Amino acid sequence: MALWSGRFEEGVDEFTQRFGASLPVDKRMYAEDIAGSIAHSAMLAKQGVISAEDAAAIKGGLEAISTEIETGEFPFDINNEDIHMSIESALTQRIGSAGKRLHTGRSRNDQVATDTRLYMKKRAKQLMAANVALREALVQKAQENFNVILPGYTHLQHAQPVLFSHHMLAYTWMFARDFERLQAAYRAADANPLGSAALAGTTYPLDRFATTEALGFSHPISNSLDAVSDRDFLLDLIYACSVSCLHLSRLCEELILWSSAEFGFVTMADSYSTGSSIMPQKKNSDFAELIRGKSGRVVGDLMALMMTLKSLPLAYNKDLQEDKEGAMDAADTLEDCYVCAAGMVAAMTVNADAMMAQAKKGYMAATDVADYLAKKGMPFRQAHEAVGHLVLLCDKRGCGLEDLTLQDFQNESPLFEADIVECLDLPAIVAARTIYGGTGHEAVRVQMTEVKAQLEKDRAYL
Amino acid sequence: MALWSGRFEEGVDEFTQRFGASLPVDKRMYAEDIAGSIAHSAMLAKQGVISAEDAAAIKGGLEAISTEIETGEFPFDINNEDIHMSIESALTQRIGSAGKRLHTGRSRNDQVATDTRLYMKKRAKQLMAANVALREALVQKAQENFNVILPGYTHLQHAQPVLFSHHMLAYTWMFARDFERLQAAYRAADANPLGSAALAGTTYPLDRFATTEALGFSHPISNSLDAVSDRDFLLDLIYACSVSCLHLSRLCEELILWSSAEFGFVTMADSYSTGSSIMPQKKNSDFAELIRGKSGRVVGDLMALMMTLKSLPLAYNKDLQEDKEGAMDAADTLEDCYVCAAGMVAAMTVNADAMMAQAKKGYMAATDVADYLAKKGMPFRQAHEAVGHLVLLCDKRGCGLEDLTLQDFQNESPLFEADIVECLDLPAIVAARTIYGGTGHEAVRVQMTEVKAQLEKDRAYL
Amino acid sequence: MALWSGRFEEGVDEFTQRFGASLPVDKRMYAEDIAGSIAHSAMLAKQGVISAEDAAAIKGGLEAISTEIETGEFPFDINNEDIHMSIESALTQRIGSAGKRLHTGRSRNDQVATDTRLYMKKRAKQLMAANVALREALVQKAQENFNVILPGYTHLQHAQPVLFSHHMLAYTWMFARDFERLQAAYRAADANPLGSAALAGTTYPLDRFATTEALGFSHPISNSLDAVSDRDFLLDLIYACSVSCLHLSRLCEELILWSSAEFGFVTMADSYSTGSSIMPQKKNSDFAELIRGKSGRVVGDLMALMMTLKSLPLAYNKDLQEDKEGAMDAADTLEDCYVCAAGMVAAMTVNADAMMAQAKKGYMAATDVADYLAKKGMPFRQAHEAVGHLVLLCDKRGCGLEDLTLQDFQNESPLFEADIVECLDLPAIVAARTIYGGTGHEAVRVQMTEVKAQLEKDRAYL
Amino acid sequence: MALWSGRFEEGVDEFTQRFGASLPVDKRMYAEDIAGSIAHSAMLAKQGVISAEDAAAIKGGLEAISTEIETGEFPFDINNEDIHMSIESALTQRIGSAGKRLHTGRSRNDQVATDTRLYMKKRAKQLMAANVALREALVQKAQENFNVILPGYTHLQHAQPVLFSHHMLAYTWMFARDFERLQAAYRAADANPLGSAALAGTTYPLDRFATTEALGFSHPISNSLDAVSDRDFLLDLIYACSVSCLHLSRLCEELILWSSAEFGFVTMADSYSTGSSIMPQKKNSDFAELIRGKSGRVVGDLMALMMTLKSLPLAYNKDLQEDKEGAMDAADTLEDCYVCAAGMVAAMTVNADAMMAQAKKGYMAATDVADYLAKKGMPFRQAHEAVGHLVLLCDKRGCGLEDLTLQDFQNESPLFEADIVECLDLPAIVAARTIYGGTGHEAVRVQMTEVKAQLEKDRAYL
Repeated sequence: MALWSGRFEEGVDEFTQRFGASLPVDKRMYAEDIAGSIAHSAMLAKQGVISAEDAAAIKGGLEAISTEIETGEFPFDINNEDIHMSIESALTQRIGSAGKRLHTGRSRNDQVATDTRLYMKKRAKQLMAANVALREALVQKAQENFNVILPGYTHLQHAQPVLFSHHMLAYTWMFARDFERLQAAYRAADANPLGSAALAGTTYPLDRFATTEALGFSHPISNSLDAVSDRDFLLDLIYACSVSCLHLSRLCEELILWSSAEFGFVTMADSYSTGSSIMPQKKNSDFAELIRGKSGRVVGDLMALMMTLKSLPLAYNKDLQEDKEGAMDAADTLEDCYVCAAGMVAAMTVNADAMMAQAKKGYMAATDVADYLAKKGMPFRQAHEAVGHLVLLCDKRGCGLEDLTLQDFQNESPLFEADIVECLDLPAIVAARTIYGGTGHEAVRVQMTEVKAQLEKDRAYL
Repeated sequence: MALWSGRFEEGVDEFTQRFGASLPVDKRMYAEDIAGSIAHSAMLAKQGVISAEDAAAIKGGLEAISTEIETGEFPFDINNEDIHMSIESALTQRIGSAGKRLHTGRSRNDQVATDTRLYMKKRAKQLMAANVALREALVQKAQENFNVILPGYTHLQHAQPVLFSHHMLAYTWMFARDFERLQAAYRAADANPLGSAALAGTTYPLDRFATTEALGFSHPISNSLDAVSDRDFLLDLIYACSVSCLHLSRLCEELILWSSAEFGFVTMADSYSTGSSIMPQKKNSDFAELIRGKSGRVVGDLMALMMTLKSLPLAYNKDLQEDKEGAMDAADTLEDCYVCAAGMVAAMTVNADAMMAQAKKGYMAATDVADYLAKKGMPFRQAHEAVGHLVLLCDKRGCGLEDLTLQDFQNESPLFEADIVECLDLPAIVAARTIYGGTGHEAVRVQMTEVKAQLEKDRAYL
Repeated sequence: MALWSGRFEEGVDEFTQRFGASLPVDKRMYAEDIAGSIAHSAMLAKQGVISAEDAAAIKGGLEAISTEIETGEFPFDINNEDIHMSIESALTQRIGSAGKRLHTGRSRNDQVATDTRLYMKKRAKQLMAANVALREALVQKAQENFNVILPGYTHLQHAQPVLFSHHMLAYTWMFARDFERLQAAYRAADANPLGSAALAGTTYPLDRFATTEALGFSHPISNSLDAVSDRDFLLDLIYACSVSCLHLSRLCEELILWSSAEFGFVTMADSYSTGSSIMPQKKNSDFAELIRGKSGRVVGDLMALMMTLKSLPLAYNKDLQEDKEGAMDAADTLEDCYVCAAGMVAAMTVNADAMMAQAKKGYMAATDVADYLAKKGMPFRQAHEAVGHLVLLCDKRGCGLEDLTLQDFQNESPLFEADIVECLDLPAIVAARTIYGGTGHEAVRVQMTEVKAQLEKDRAYL
Repeated sequence: MALWSGRFEEGVDEFTQRFGASLPVDKRMYAEDIAGSIAHSAMLAKQGVISAEDAAAIKGGLEAISTEIETGEFPFDINNEDIHMSIESALTQRIGSAGKRLHTGRSRNDQVATDTRLYMKKRAKQLMAANVALREALVQKAQENFNVILPGYTHLQHAQPVLFSHHMLAYTWMFARDFERLQAAYRAADANPLGSAALAGTTYPLDRFATTEALGFSHPISNSLDAVSDRDFLLDLIYACSVSCLHLSRLCEELILWSSAEFGFVTMADSYSTGSSIMPQKKNSDFAELIRGKSGRVVGDLMALMMTLKSLPLAYNKDLQEDKEGAMDAADTLEDCYVCAAGMVAAMTVNADAMMAQAKKGYMAATDVADYLAKKGMPFRQAHEAVGHLVLLCDKRGCGLEDLTLQDFQNESPLFEADIVECLDLPAIVAARTIYGGTGHEAVRVQMTEVKAQLEKDRAYL
């Protein structure tokens, strides 16, 4: 019979036992559960609620259980529906009545909230570390290929030439924002519910500030009803994971495109590729696709918890038992994706020639030609239209802007002079974008310094 | 090294091996994989592509493997990334070159699609059976409490009295529609992709109609590209599960309300209730809450797969490896919820007195009083307003409509006569709704016949 | 004051009036509201509940209002919170007490359900028509380019050559399944709630079968509580739209890829392209991107309604007012996307040469070479590995399989003979896939017949 | 013809014009578009790119257009597909070639990003103000009813008595966290993309720090590719709105329960209630239901944008045109919900007697009775079980714990003495929870101070 079964005349059957149990999910939080119980019992002793001997027995018993769980020897039993009951019931079997005093002034409601917050703080930090590692891989790749020119795209059409390094750094900014979101999720989890008991607080003279300090929380939660019913910190974590998965899906989409035969901009390492069971020639960017696909599951985790929380009255409701699995899945998935993406980016080969070959197509100098006219006084809109006509001319001739004669240019506008050829050189076009944040070599060097400074700051937070 | 690794010089490491593997998920489909391989090899032999001896060796080997998996003796190895490679590689170890001929004219792309479709057909049927059982429990409860009067609600405000049985039957119609959605999902899965190979079909003289018949599919899929990239049947299944979970969330919301102290309309059996670790008096409708909460995870599964499918070019992409886990989770969850809900409904006690006590509050006769006036010739809108005034009068006096005097009624309209009291009697009000689909006893008896006929029809489909 | 305000002492203010009003959304259903009211009042007269004169006055009044709304002359007033109150209140102003009798035996709850079902039946049919038109455009494009060879992809890597027409037909099957889902949504809507009144039915001798026939419904809904609280038919419609938008996102992803400089497989018509405000050369596949992006909003509409429905007790709750806007948006969006996609596909130019040029890359004959060995008796797995080695050899030499000498082949296996060259010819490779559903020319011709037969059948349903 | 049409030979037709246009959505950002253009042109003049006269003409022209839009006189034309083209093209018509110089060194890509960020900063601040107003209403209600005792619930079962004020304050903490999320969204939007041009920066000597200052941004965005493709700030805003809508759904669920006949804890003001078209007695908490239902649409907006962003390659793609409508809808919806909820809470009547009557049911003293035993030395688990037996005894007798005799208590444990009656008094039970964050009167007073301090701090941010 369960520890709460005094008033019950009938137990649950095997099906409902399994259906109602959260043990398979929450046993991952055993270390946090034990830490919480040790802090709680030490505080109870300090406050004179239980004896120092009982607290010591509890601590000893819990530490032994912790060791057993770590070594896989602990006999989990689904009849102890969750990790909390599993541990408390084993403790009581072992140390007797001291164990029965552990739960004084505590409810599973504040206990589970405490464990979950501790656990998610740990996971958020681990995610931040993996996030930093991915950004480092991107920076490294950018540095190794600093001057490589990539055709820049809008609408997947050639737009303007950019530095490959500039493109890689764009992703570091996205992931830096995700780091911030993970920090926000960490801070949201970093508050102590212990002492809120079932929903109303307790009549025991507990010292919530003591457990707050012992468990490393920044402050106790101010309202006991809120303490046991709030799951915002899980939403914040899954949300942070979701957005970062979206960023990964964008990166992976590009890597998949780039490693196609048509683009050929990068070659994936064999160790991040797989073959086909039927087609002997195949080398697929499987891992980039897998990461891209996993964005779905993480966003699904977010939707799931949002729906579960909708319309729940205060305070605790059993619906909330569904809170952890999705959050754990989101964190596990993102961590794996970070690790995989970092390895994949580090191991891929950048094909500068293929990028340059494509950069020469698509009239990517057109904007600079229009700017040339505008700088000579033609209103920009008019210059834009004039160059549009030149592009149409090239299209018909099947040639590039660089293949037009000066006469061709001057037929469109007398403002063109021989120096127009300077506007048609890709490296020069790139270099000319010296503006802050632009793709010019100098500007990207400045940006690189900022990226590294941000990384330094974020590493310090870990 | 993997079976596809001829062209590779470098293998994947332990992390990518685990990250890329689908074995922990797809091993549930081992029976379908083996059935598919047996059908494929038998057909290959019939078509003269492999020898009869090879086909027999394959069949024997696969059946032995099947037995080992069932008894838990099969040595799964994560290096065989999925159930397909696990089985094929064990087969080849055991029967030699015959095993290497099994995959002739087949790709994992059509193999995995075949296995998944077979598996989901099985699960859809199992869900239909559980669906029928829940409807039977609802019908049973309705019959046992046929004449019990419940206050009917709109906006959670007392509206008009209804039969409790009418209310229960409303849910059977919702679940009957879910049965239809499950059927649609079944039909969507019921088409054979085998023979589509990687994406283009094959040059071997395969007989797709033979494997279609052997595996119990209704027809072969008409386009090989579609065959390997279509996952609509999984969407259809998760969608059907999602809608049914929404219906369950509505039912459970009501059961939770009804078992509150304030309503007290039903008493949950001890076997479907749990207690509190701190509050000795608590008896919580935990299972109804858990079912309600699980609607989130299933809708999350739907969102997940939709997002994963978005923007995928043809034909197979590794993103699709993410397709099965959510569908399995949705099916498992719904099946458990059906079983739990059926048991919970069957075991709960209906408190007719508490329902009647509440039904007497809230002026639930007001519509009939307005209809009384309208039937005497007053336009309905005017009658509605007149009764509104009477309600306001009761509100001020703190009494019910039945406490008003005839004079009170006549002050509002001279059309009122002594027979107005007949409009104030709850059982009479209910009984008067004889219209098809209405809550009158006769009408509900007719409806009960329809519900049972539908159940009969659906049971026949199983 | 509202028509229901008899018992109220205080009205709502301007903000709550606007916030609570559904008129801006539901006024699109005016025709259905009027049709429903005419059918209801005609039935009331037939049943002797109101006089034939009243029914005639109601019909005349409503038809006049209908005309005014169509011509834009009807004076909508937000104080009449929804289309139902707007029309009824205008009617009463015009025809007096007959108008006040219209609502006899009816509630807004069954009225709004009736209107919404009629409206969505209409929209579902219109969507089916647009669906058929898109499939016709795809078939047309397939026919015009029947023999064009496209590199077939898995994992966006060259896999095996396929007919462009085969690829186009793959999409027609996806959209044909969407047609089925739209039919299911149509059938779900096709049931008459009228006569269910607020939630319990009514005491008036209404003939629900008469209004069912007059309004073209297939049958009356069997349970009055279900009739006013069921919104499954809207979920079904939005779900059908969502899946079809996912299919469109896949098609558009491919069109965007194909119209990139790197692929160059299709050229979008100017009329389905746009330019850039700054880059004069740009020609973007804007419309394909817009359709791809709109998959988000429709799936969002689905999630929105699912969440709104979660945990709602029976019967009607105001939350349900949120039901229509998303369904209308999903239908509008899908219809526009169908129309746009059909036009875009029809107007695009297929560049057969570019496709063939790419098809020659990527060793797409490898599977056929392996099959060559397997057909000569080598187990397929061994053949697969042998060809893997040949591909690796080509990779190192930077050549294609067709550039290897017979000696190269025989170094790998003595089974190779001079006829291996026949396995390296792309059109021959395609043609050899004669299997049902395969990409061989003959097989695609058979498939085309099936596609057209399905289209014929679906057109007949409209 | 569009402003970008130099290279096009064919225009779009009416359908594609409408389908591709964003004007109906983005015209709400006209003020931000004009502010951005004025800042850009002033900076161009300062940098010598255009003349001071041109800048002055542009400023004058734009201000005139601004006035016209405000007064509704501006002739919007769908052929100018968005607000940016609408304004620029009107400007050029009016001031000639100076207008054609406005777009120098700018692209619609950075222009639209700038406008959207400015607009969303404004909306975020407005949402924060509405958030504060709601929290003030909750605090006010808590203060007015400070000592009212409410039955506290877990699992919707009576758990322990709490102060109504404590319950109200729980919501203020939830909304305070939402305020933080809105701040995070504000900060995410607060960065200047202007000067990033299409994707790569520009060759004009623009001063991005000058426009940053002129437009009130905190800093220029560091990477031009990121600047035009980042929509995280919109996700952050919709996410903040979503979570707050979930909190509102919880509050409204409770208000709906509480205003039911069964609970009767609050009475909604007439001004926040509506009636029924058929049932004259009905008074429905429509607005609470509407707010609860609207959580769906906002979460739908979040899912929509997440799906749209998935897998988009850099930099700008037309899919992003779908970004604004959902964000605007989420902000509009949340703002309305805040305003409505604040008014509703302020106007509702708290029925202290009904709360107390219910608080007396459900053995809510049980925890304190168990604590009584535990404080006398019985291990808590044993005490919990003993009280469970007492509850079972009451259940059978149909009485409350306060109806048991001392003998009854002592039969369960000899530790019980006459002072057990003190544990059965509800106000005493509440008052005894003096722990920080608990429901004791003193603790809630402390909490109230914290709530107000937080409000003060947040008001200062506006």
